Amino acid sequence: MERSCGNGTLRLSDVGKKVTLIGWVSRRRNFGQLVFIDLRDRSGLIQVVFDETISEQIKDVRSEYILQVTGTIEKRGEANPKMPTGEIEVKAEEVKIINSAQTPPITISDDTDSLEDTRLKYRYLDLRRPILQQIMMLRHKVCMIARNTLDAEGFVEVETPILARSTPEGARDYLVPSRIYNGKFWALPQSPQIYKQLLMIAGMERYFQIARCFRDEDLRADRQPEFTQIDIEMSFVNEDDVFGIVEKLMKDIFKGIKNYELEDHFISIPYAECMSRFGSDKPDLRYGNEIIYLDELFKDTEFTVFKNVLENKGTIGALKFENAADQYSRKGLDKLQEFVKHGFNAKALAYLKYENNELSGSIFKALSEQEHQALIEHLELKNNDLVLVIADQAKVVQSALGGLRVRLAHELNIIPSEEQYKFLWVTDFPMFEYSEEEGRYVASHHPFTAPKEEDIDKLFSDPANVSSRAYDLVLNGYELLSGSIRIHDQELQEKVFEAIGLTMEEAKLRFGFFLDAFQYGTPPHGGVGIGLERLIMVLAGTENIRDVVAFPTTNSSLDLMSESPNVVDQKQLDVLGIELKK
Amino acid sequence: MERSCGNGTLRLSDVGKKVTLIGWVSRRRNFGQLVFIDLRDRSGLIQVVFDETISEQIKDVRSEYILQVTGTIEKRGEANPKMPTGEIEVKAEEVKIINSAQTPPITISDDTDSLEDTRLKYRYLDLRRPILQQIMMLRHKVCMIARNTLDAEGFVEVETPILARSTPEGARDYLVPSRIYNGKFWALPQSPQIYKQLLMIAGMERYFQIARCFRDEDLRADRQPEFTQIDIEMSFVNEDDVFGIVEKLMKDIFKGIKNYELEDHFISIPYAECMSRFGSDKPDLRYGNEIIYLDELFKDTEFTVFKNVLENKGTIGALKFENAADQYSRKGLDKLQEFVKHGFNAKALAYLKYENNELSGSIFKALSEQEHQALIEHLELKNNDLVLVIADQAKVVQSALGGLRVRLAHELNIIPSEEQYKFLWVTDFPMFEYSEEEGRYVASHHPFTAPKEEDIDKLFSDPANVSSRAYDLVLNGYELLSGSIRIHDQELQEKVFEAIGLTMEEAKLRFGFFLDAFQYGTPPHGGVGIGLERLIMVLAGTENIRDVVAFPTTNSSLDLMSESPNVVDQKQLDVLGIELKK
Repeated sequence: MERSCGNGTLRLSDVGKKVTLIGWVSRRRNFGQLVFIDLRDRSGLIQVVFDETISEQIKDVRSEYILQVTGTIEKRGEANPKMPTGEIEVKAEEVKIINSAQTPPITISDDTDSLEDTRLKYRYLDLRRPILQQIMMLRHKVCMIARNTLDAEGFVEVETPILARSTPEGARDYLVPSRIYNGKFWALPQSPQIYKQLLMIAGMERYFQIARCFRDEDLRADRQPEFTQIDIEMSFVNEDDVFGIVEKLMKDIFKGIKNYELEDHFISIPYAECMSRFGSDKPDLRYGNEIIYLDELFKDTEFTVFKNVLENKGTIGALKFENAADQYSRKGLDKLQEFVKHGFNAKALAYLKYENNELSGSIFKALSEQEHQALIEHLELKNNDLVLVIADQAKVVQSALGGLRVRLAHELNIIPSEEQYKFLWVTDFPMFEYSEEEGRYVASHHPFTAPKEEDIDKLFSDPANVSSRAYDLVLNGYELLSGSIRIHDQELQEKVFEAIGLTMEEAKLRFGFFLDAFQYGTPPHGGVGIGLERLIMVLAGTENIRDVVAFPTTNSSLDLMSESPNVVDQKQLDVLGIELKK
Repeated sequence: MERSCGNGTLRLSDVGKKVTLIGWVSRRRNFGQLVFIDLRDRSGLIQVVFDETISEQIKDVRSEYILQVTGTIEKRGEANPKMPTGEIEVKAEEVKIINSAQTPPITISDDTDSLEDTRLKYRYLDLRRPILQQIMMLRHKVCMIARNTLDAEGFVEVETPILARSTPEGARDYLVPSRIYNGKFWALPQSPQIYKQLLMIAGMERYFQIARCFRDEDLRADRQPEFTQIDIEMSFVNEDDVFGIVEKLMKDIFKGIKNYELEDHFISIPYAECMSRFGSDKPDLRYGNEIIYLDELFKDTEFTVFKNVLENKGTIGALKFENAADQYSRKGLDKLQEFVKHGFNAKALAYLKYENNELSGSIFKALSEQEHQALIEHLELKNNDLVLVIADQAKVVQSALGGLRVRLAHELNIIPSEEQYKFLWVTDFPMFEYSEEEGRYVASHHPFTAPKEEDIDKLFSDPANVSSRAYDLVLNGYELLSGSIRIHDQELQEKVFEAIGLTMEEAKLRFGFFLDAFQYGTPPHGGVGIGLERLIMVLAGTENIRDVVAFPTTNSSLDLMSESPNVVDQKQLDVLGIELKK
């Protein structure tokens, strides 16, 4: 069909040109016989004017009709600064109605007030909103950049199976019953982890895949049952090699999408230090407010609470928020108190305010004059500063202050409003964590992660203190990816399975073919899986994962548009050899 | 890890350079204290020489050990012309054993004689064979070119769901039981057909996706349960627009991969003509041997067989094979007879040979002297020509001769040995075909294909003669893609559903949301789905689909490597609310 260009691409310099445009009617306004229509295509909107010589032809045309219009670009009497094409309009000379439309059940504009559930049901109309079209194009562009960068770095994209083997460790698998082998099942992969490691064993050396992954989890606002991962694996590498590739990738993406220059290398902080300084393994580095430890200051205190904590090998941590004392009334502080008690199991939250050169607060009276002075000096308190203090076991202090740090950063608008991207590698994660539910240590990352060389002898004697070669990349407080250097030695892999309580028999049953593979010349290797949706969310500036997925499900895994999952014919189940439980 | 370059990239011009290489031991030969090792990485092989000063260090090194070798490139005494690096070798000065290896259970070389089932079980070792590594890299390169071309043409890659709605029409769906909604199921998509049409309705205008598709079919040698499609859809287009994009894509791929210049536009033949001339809707145009019709020549024949056929509105078709008469003995011709009888339901195959200026053959005596002469002239027979004749209903004649045309092209080596790529658009496919099994007409392509404008009034009165706007692209006898211009009108879509015997109720149940979508301003649109595996097979010159898939299944859908599908825990089934049928 004849078409000169995209509607949104026209500018003042095009005045006088004759064009043929196609698009959807976004808005229609009548002024007597003069009709104004905003015509929308993927590139944007343009105003088309139909005067009395032609407006009769579009008398039935309403929202979402598709028109083909030929006309001349003219300068508008009064420009609309909100539209990129706002300085011009098209004077229609010919018009053809390509298709008609019923009144859409949602408002198709960026500032739609239609309910999200209605928009999900009519997703194909919701996707006409310019903002969503732009995000889909952004997502495409990010993938193009990622692929071109990785290709240039010698990576080969290999498609790994979606119909895979069930390896229950971690989240639940989606299962697919086999028709040919009744009673047997495929599983949709939670990630291509095993396949990409096999590709390293296969000598592929540098692999990537923008890969679909599946996790059958219970509802969480920022998850979808299927999601996409920029999956990378490399042979003959250490952490620095992997970091280098990811840094290059991020640099190219942020340059290409945002024209934003990232630094060549991102800073790196070990997990333990990260927890100690920020109370989080994914700290937002766009602001400071690090945890300040007061153990030394209070080492001779008479204040029983602090004294007891220190005697019990606990710690006293504080956060200082500048110029914030007047922002928190007693009521506001009570809310924070509840927050740390219920969210982090902290026994109590103490506070101090420094106002008009005077210290006050919940623990003011319990402390000596000398301690007041030491606090003012040590914390370099200035007028209107607020100090939050927690004394407890280190884990509790860190996580509670970490939570407060994020909460107050939002409440106090500490996060800078200008675009800023603070990347951080967090390294040396604990190898194991104790699962109360399972009554055993489980792999913190996944059981293929290599332990730190120097900690291997603690695998059984002191598993809680084994560090791993796992790392995360954090961006502005979000975990963007995780990865690790893997085990490449069969014996060590078997030991790690043993350490998480898998008998050799169970391990062989679940991962037998994978363990076997290790014995035929496995290269040292490592990699990452980058959460694509999370990356796009950061780049698009949205907190809603459904904004970055073309056809998302609700938080409870329902596709409202196609109404799936749905019931199927009995005969479909019959051939699969399964039946519904009564 | 230190590494100068890929092993296979070194050449005579590198002599004298000191390099550090990494790779797998492909072959080891001992000459006393002198050891030769072919060291393999992704880029290829190079010979490394270990003299008596260093060979002790590798005394335990066997096949598939991983070594890091530092040494100097030297010119070989005698070049090995079979290796790209055959003019040089590396004189090892330092060596480090990176990992050891057990004796591999298959022979890891391009000319491996290991059984395919064993190779599939140890796929991670099979993939070390240079030929397979090269095909994986070829596949990656094809996808890179496809994405860059489509991106440049304004196409946006959009990921559509793998967890989709079951829409049983065509092949069987793989089902995924829902844990949250027991008794309900997702289906893995047979193609993104509905989603891509919804994306057109959503105003995406130009969409593509290199998409995973799933069909639960019974065993067929050239199929896999999951496969990949370069899926394309465009709005506001007709056939020529779609063809133009695909031609550009193919040109770029064949130029990039083969440095082979394709013509700008491919020829196009309607289905009916294609069947009539080649007896196939996917003719290999690298050779001629078109069907010659002899109805006119025999219109007054006295030969009862031919006479009866013509009276019954049948036809007499022939194939001529030059210089082939002496290639087919009586026994060989009997085999062809069996072939057309059992494969194509033909009643009989007649033949004629022209040898030493004399005609002979099975129907020689039944024909008149005049007919002999007419045949020699009409068929322009030359010495040693073979003519195969079938007289029957047109469908039988065409398909049987089509089968013979392919068979004899192979048996007689008619297909040119040099690289040649003959593309052909086949258009105007029949809209419906009658399914004996279902006792109704079914959509030949899929039920969203638009009928030819001029045939719409025959949808119910004469469905067998409705042509559609479906097309295939054929390359060297293989169907590379199929596609169509789609219906974009709700009323017409409903009519087509009705014509294939779907009641409005059933149609709404299966495709309700999709039918609904049509009423809100649907653009005219069309597209294609290109079979990626088939394209790679042609480019790689292999007939085995498992050569172009990293982790394939057997013909009976078994993954021998991971031994899946497999049994799962009872508790996995319990949470899904399903049980195995007794």
